[in-house]
Amino acid sequence: MYRDYTCGELRTEHIGQTVTLSGWVQKNRNLGGMTFVDIRDRYGITQLVFNMETHKELCEQARKLGREFVIQAIGTVAERSNKNTQIPTGEIEILVETLNVLNESELPPFTIEDNTDGGDELRMQYRYLDLRRNVVRKNLVLRHQMAFEVRNYLNNQKFIETETPVLIKSTPEGARDFIVPSRMNEGEFYALPQSPQVFKQLLMVAGFDRYFQIVKCFRDEDLRADRQPEFTQIDCEMAFVEQEDILSTFEGMTKHLFKTIRGVELNDFPRMPYAEAMEFYGSDKPDIRFDMKFHDMTELVKNSGFVVFDSAEYVGGICAEGCAGYTRKELDGLTDFVKKPQIGAKGLIYLKCNEDGTLKSSVDKFFDSEKLEGWKAHFNAKPGDLILVISGDKSKALKQLCELRLEMGKRMGLRDKNKFAPLWVVDFPLLEWDEESERYFAMHHPFTSPKKEDFDLLETDPGKVRANAYDLVINGVEIGGGSIRIHNDELQQKMFDLLGFTKEEAEEQFGFLMNAFKYGAPPHGGVAFGFDRWVSLFAGLDSIRDVIAFPKNNAGRDVMIDSPSPIAKEQLDELNLILAEKKK
Amino acid sequence: MYRDYTCGELRTEHIGQTVTLSGWVQKNRNLGGMTFVDIRDRYGITQLVFNMETHKELCEQARKLGREFVIQAIGTVAERSNKNTQIPTGEIEILVETLNVLNESELPPFTIEDNTDGGDELRMQYRYLDLRRNVVRKNLVLRHQMAFEVRNYLNNQKFIETETPVLIKSTPEGARDFIVPSRMNEGEFYALPQSPQVFKQLLMVAGFDRYFQIVKCFRDEDLRADRQPEFTQIDCEMAFVEQEDILSTFEGMTKHLFKTIRGVELNDFPRMPYAEAMEFYGSDKPDIRFDMKFHDMTELVKNSGFVVFDSAEYVGGICAEGCAGYTRKELDGLTDFVKKPQIGAKGLIYLKCNEDGTLKSSVDKFFDSEKLEGWKAHFNAKPGDLILVISGDKSKALKQLCELRLEMGKRMGLRDKNKFAPLWVVDFPLLEWDEESERYFAMHHPFTSPKKEDFDLLETDPGKVRANAYDLVINGVEIGGGSIRIHNDELQQKMFDLLGFTKEEAEEQFGFLMNAFKYGAPPHGGVAFGFDRWVSLFAGLDSIRDVIAFPKNNAGRDVMIDSPSPIAKEQLDELNLILAEKKK
Repeated sequence: MYRDYTCGELRTEHIGQTVTLSGWVQKNRNLGGMTFVDIRDRYGITQLVFNMETHKELCEQARKLGREFVIQAIGTVAERSNKNTQIPTGEIEILVETLNVLNESELPPFTIEDNTDGGDELRMQYRYLDLRRNVVRKNLVLRHQMAFEVRNYLNNQKFIETETPVLIKSTPEGARDFIVPSRMNEGEFYALPQSPQVFKQLLMVAGFDRYFQIVKCFRDEDLRADRQPEFTQIDCEMAFVEQEDILSTFEGMTKHLFKTIRGVELNDFPRMPYAEAMEFYGSDKPDIRFDMKFHDMTELVKNSGFVVFDSAEYVGGICAEGCAGYTRKELDGLTDFVKKPQIGAKGLIYLKCNEDGTLKSSVDKFFDSEKLEGWKAHFNAKPGDLILVISGDKSKALKQLCELRLEMGKRMGLRDKNKFAPLWVVDFPLLEWDEESERYFAMHHPFTSPKKEDFDLLETDPGKVRANAYDLVINGVEIGGGSIRIHNDELQQKMFDLLGFTKEEAEEQFGFLMNAFKYGAPPHGGVAFGFDRWVSLFAGLDSIRDVIAFPKNNAGRDVMIDSPSPIAKEQLDELNLILAEKKK
Repeated sequence: MYRDYTCGELRTEHIGQTVTLSGWVQKNRNLGGMTFVDIRDRYGITQLVFNMETHKELCEQARKLGREFVIQAIGTVAERSNKNTQIPTGEIEILVETLNVLNESELPPFTIEDNTDGGDELRMQYRYLDLRRNVVRKNLVLRHQMAFEVRNYLNNQKFIETETPVLIKSTPEGARDFIVPSRMNEGEFYALPQSPQVFKQLLMVAGFDRYFQIVKCFRDEDLRADRQPEFTQIDCEMAFVEQEDILSTFEGMTKHLFKTIRGVELNDFPRMPYAEAMEFYGSDKPDIRFDMKFHDMTELVKNSGFVVFDSAEYVGGICAEGCAGYTRKELDGLTDFVKKPQIGAKGLIYLKCNEDGTLKSSVDKFFDSEKLEGWKAHFNAKPGDLILVISGDKSKALKQLCELRLEMGKRMGLRDKNKFAPLWVVDFPLLEWDEESERYFAMHHPFTSPKKEDFDLLETDPGKVRANAYDLVINGVEIGGGSIRIHNDELQQKMFDLLGFTKEEAEEQFGFLMNAFKYGAPPHGGVAFGFDRWVSLFAGLDSIRDVIAFPKNNAGRDVMIDSPSPIAKEQLDELNLILAEKKK
């Protein structure tokens, strides 16, 4: 070992000991008679002292140490006269007797500090230096700890972590697959899994009873800010269970993680039907750290002569407590916010319930004070509250109100990153109608089971059928989701029919699963959690990129290793592939 | 839940309780008045009883249950009159009151028994049924437990499990990469990692200090019996360490695994230089469960007039204790064994040291008894021992002797699967000369550091340079290996020169690593273990296929999901790829 203590370990009880430390030069201060060098490793920072009077040569050597040099220092632990209470090693320093430079360093392209001067692009290019920064590394340590505790919990619950294959088969359903040409099987391709869905169901058929895996999954999608082509799931499945069993098992896991990692004891999670989430929050992942539910005013304002409302399918709003004092400018700002193209509202109507009991709205012309008092009562508003109203096509208006509610939550300081409000959203619709292709798509996936009480609707009104499907939502972020699966091959066949698969297509794509179901498939269900997102939630970050050691950028590139990249023609030849002419 | 107890849980203390079990029908025996059904799940088997007199209808229903039907049974736990001491639940049975068929099953294509009637091909095609067999599933449970204990140990040692990317960059060095076309970056490709080697070194540059990962790796090789295109490594790296630190850390991990999983307390592992392993065992992975070292007789038999020996570069043999009684037929069998094409010896010479003190050899014509007594003394042979001798080109003869030694070990019952003899093989050569391309290759990989004491040889005799490289060998199986890396970019550059890389090639392939080394790379080293092989060793299996849930066959095919497979032309178009004409 190049050390006998780490740079975060020494305390006053070590005073007088001769120790060896190794690490990186964080700082080098030459104060004339003395030179102080801060040596850093993953575990902390320790101050090294070089004395010009007693150790001239050594001190001169120390003065030449540049930032990020890798050094080994041997010396005696001494009490510091000028103690630093900010760091755990701040009471001691090392009087150095031997200094070895283990490796030099060029001047790094940005400072290795919590607040670095390096821009995003540069930091990604030199990610190995970026990862030296405490604020970045601690996210990866958190990730490790979370994975470790997930495994602890699930192992205790008798789950078997089972690796499923990465080289699988391409299925046209869902997002785009990454494909891998097979050299040994000419003209044929593997695909990388978007999830181990089929394999975990097969493991249930195989009697594994409880399966989990922390596993890489792949989607060749056009990337948005918070997507990566490769991402990590906590993938789980259980046999002989009903929805309630899954929810309680994984509510237990979530509580375990919050307790062991964040030190937070959570109460039992509320459950909210999808229909309610959409109606009162305009979203299937409501942030319930704060209330501010929607109030439907459509009936209340019907036929008022105000054409905007009269022509609207839906009129509804939220009540922002204590915001009646908003200025004209603030209200205009909110209007601009909802009119942004990505939100798309035509306008925003307000009603101030002033502290003095008076009312002031932007539609005073159309609604007399009696009517506005009716609004106030409808919203249960108190003096000092601000009512904000949006109208239009219902599904659009709900989404716009959702954005407005979140924005108001932010402005009112109701979205505290250290407060956690978990929620199960349940009773998702089984199917989604796609206008363009004029067919139903599975909202979750084609193996999700319909609720028993809605079986009849499968024939008469499939769009109304609810599924045994659920999402875990924390602070408005979808952390995971799953469903109870179909385990009966007749029902599965009916589902494929509804989704417009011909018997041949279903057979070709899912034949082996359908076949497996013929040999005694048990009732089963499961859930998958987005691990990257969960870690970023715990880390208090908005993007998943900072909790991934070597992430890719929005073009799917790793700028550090410069990948993807062209390959040798021989490699393509071996795979029997030809590159087409470049598209313009 | 469809049950309140598992099928392996009930004991006499539960007698009188009403319980619900769910599982698969293992067996159905109709004894006229009574019908017995064995219900099975992952946890065990419980006997269900149906009484024709008291529950006629139920009993008739039970008689119709086929093998592998999924059922739920509610009934009372009763003491068995005819106890089965072979299974933990053998003292009780369930007097069934309610029976629900949860799913029917077609007759499975093979029996779900430890000794199945299903052939390899069929079992792989229906792997989900094969996995129902106890003997198969328990290997996967073992795998889970081993991974869990590896993580426990390494977490306690402050290792951080860090996920490295799966979509990386193709490098021509080493085995063939699987490649993944990028849709968003036209004409460019990712590659799947053969190991996270470069990334773990970058994590050391990043100051992560201790990294590990249980991770899938990929090699597009022509498959042999015990290879898979995707396989799993326990990948580890540490900073500020020397070889001894790595060996002691991972010797600790190995002991931990043996203790927690196999209940075996291991002594400290012996260490053997590569040169010694080759000289005395003809292999860099000697099975030291038994001794039977080689004795070099080249000098002893020089110029004896026996042309076979006189013309040989090397003459050597082993002494098989107590085998002097081998019959003519047995000795002929051994000769045939070493003459097999895959071993390739020209012949085998023996010397029987008979119990009565006489000697009998196959070369009595050329060696008088005095000379043969010399052999006996040279081998330290006792009366009753058998000396077996091979001669020829040294490197070939050593390999042939190695095979002979292993064969004799097997015949003599010295290779007990429940005995474990771990060993560190150290001081591997840095380079290997390739006759065909007339250049050196890195024996381990291009980042392995040479031993300091051999630095001079780098210029004068590179083939003689020993590396800081080591393998962990257990029972003749290479379980893992690693090295102390080069952390200095000048030395790394020299290494690339030796390997015949131009500056441009080195820059193109490893530029980002070389670049990283400029910014303060710490001394570091690591090791990677073949997880599949380790599990199969613990499971007492010869092939890794049985410890993989969904393995591929020797053509790289998953016969269950029928992958790889052709893909849609649209998918190729999007990737800008064209399939070349089929090769003949």
